[in-house]
Amino acid sequence: MIQIEHIGIAVKDLQAAEDVYARLLGVAPYKREAVESEGVTTSFFRTGPNKIELLESTQPDGPIAKSIAKRGEGIHHIAFAVEDIRREMARLKAAGFTLLSEEPKPGADNKLVCFIHPKDANGVLVELCQERSVQP
Amino acid sequence: MIQIEHIGIAVKDLQAAEDVYARLLGVAPYKREAVESEGVTTSFFRTGPNKIELLESTQPDGPIAKSIAKRGEGIHHIAFAVEDIRREMARLKAAGFTLLSEEPKPGADNKLVCFIHPKDANGVLVELCQERSVQP
Repeated sequence: MIQIEHIGIAVKDLQAAEDVYARLLGVAPYKREAVESEGVTTSFFRTGPNKIELLESTQPDGPIAKSIAKRGEGIHHIAFAVEDIRREMARLKAAGFTLLSEEPKPGADNKLVCFIHPKDANGVLVELCQERSVQP
Repeated sequence: MIQIEHIGIAVKDLQAAEDVYARLLGVAPYKREAVESEGVTTSFFRTGPNKIELLESTQPDGPIAKSIAKRGEGIHHIAFAVEDIRREMARLKAAGFTLLSEEPKPGADNKLVCFIHPKDANGVLVELCQERSVQP
């Protein structure tokens, strides 16, 4: 674990939420990106060394739509930057954490990602992410 | 807004959660601190330039106990470091955000803090915090 890479926030209306977070953070979002495999459109803000990622579902039954139906809008996950995602996945699996995929998957913002089951982290959905450019 | 200062996570059992997050993050917590005015005991982990704050309620009807009763354990708030909390409170109030206190309050880790209503930030409870040593 290097540091928090971003905080993911589930929202119903990306455009409206972008306006809110631009006012809140005092900066404009720097990019939008669709992640089709996850059924989301994302919008990113820089805040110092971290990012805020707003997530709007593109599918009525996608993970973000389900999360909002269950818990409302709000923080969806914390993502930690890691240097070597496979090594970190192996370390956490050995430490008893349940990984939600056996292999890293492509994520937004040029990352390889893997999620850890929230039941193992006091209700927090934890994402590991590694820059794809530094993948061995 | 300077950067994310910490992520607050509501937990039922601080000792058990400290063990989990020590394994997850690969570091030990660096301090515990009681905040009597908020009815919580907190435990802090460093993760790069940010912190993770675990929060256990010391009161059956305190804000953390209520949050867990309503939503279960999980992420409770995002705290942003600010240079001048009163200036930032005035800016956000003028921008239409609802502040949960008119004046900054003493928080954990030698901070002055103020919360913003989650209804104004897509369900996210946002904390502003300023180091008390730099207060004018």
